[in-house]
Amino acid sequence: MKFCNQCGAGVAKRVPEGDNRPRHVCTECGTIHYLNPRIIAGCLPVYGDKVLLCRRAIEPRLGYWTLPAGFMENGESTEHAARRETLEETCAEVEIHSLYTLTSIVHVNQVQLIYLASLPRPEYAPSEESLEVCLFAEDEIPWDELAFETIRQVLRLYFEDRKRQQFPLRHIEIDSNAFHSARVHD
Amino acid sequence: MKFCNQCGAGVAKRVPEGDNRPRHVCTECGTIHYLNPRIIAGCLPVYGDKVLLCRRAIEPRLGYWTLPAGFMENGESTEHAARRETLEETCAEVEIHSLYTLTSIVHVNQVQLIYLASLPRPEYAPSEESLEVCLFAEDEIPWDELAFETIRQVLRLYFEDRKRQQFPLRHIEIDSNAFHSARVHD
Repeated sequence: MKFCNQCGAGVAKRVPEGDNRPRHVCTECGTIHYLNPRIIAGCLPVYGDKVLLCRRAIEPRLGYWTLPAGFMENGESTEHAARRETLEETCAEVEIHSLYTLTSIVHVNQVQLIYLASLPRPEYAPSEESLEVCLFAEDEIPWDELAFETIRQVLRLYFEDRKRQQFPLRHIEIDSNAFHSARVHD
Repeated sequence: MKFCNQCGAGVAKRVPEGDNRPRHVCTECGTIHYLNPRIIAGCLPVYGDKVLLCRRAIEPRLGYWTLPAGFMENGESTEHAARRETLEETCAEVEIHSLYTLTSIVHVNQVQLIYLASLPRPEYAPSEESLEVCLFAEDEIPWDELAFETIRQVLRLYFEDRKRQQFPLRHIEIDSNAFHSARVHD
């Protein structure tokens, strides 16, 4: 950030009065520009013993498989965002059951919320955002072609939890792209 | 938003290619400036049968009581943010147990996460952000002097759930300042 989006003057990094960390502050009008993590909301849609994945038609990770999820917009709830992203990426209307994973992706300033959901009917289709949409049984998941480490972890936890048919909220923390840095607890 | 924070030129609202809603787009360099909800993280700190509240030393709602909570910063997890805000506002070190409420405050583009936490010792103090910090039993809660409707709802749910000693994650949605607009479900 180099310029103030309110008045167009330059910004400088300094600690505002009463604050304890450097912010981008306008050198003319004094507006403080905060930078905060963004929320990614999505679903893990289930139909029978299968899970719905979509193959990305857009960067990043074009061509790789993922769960339907995307940036939450202003003016909606987290569940609305999860349902909307699922509809946009898979053309499927889902029924949301519970929040299943909350992943803090610390190194990219994102918080990912994935809701456990069901497909009332096996109706889905590709969209502008997805090249393919497909239901996968556990032994069919394209583990080597998944778009994101976070999604791999959500799917791995889901198939573990499914054995017990219990799906407690899982907190995951990832602070680099490395798999081993993930910390998982209930 | 009137100016591009990357190049200082003016921005215009238009729907970018491949998008489906108007964004602030720079008329010179083309940078798209997304606006997304921000996360507020905090704790409901419990000691014995009492709950720790703090009286705000800063606007908005200066002088009113609230649970310790504040904006999540870049470079931290949601739990780290909840613990940090609790320390900054009450000087108390807490032990986090579980995510208790997720509130979508739709009309102000915020998502509030409150973690159930315990105070290992009754050690707390006012800070630059709090005029007073105090433990309250249920019948001592200053219901008429609470800072935010969201906090009133979290406390109300907590005392209900405490009767059964079960604290499932609660989703709350508020889309105006009116109390009656809140929708609560498990």
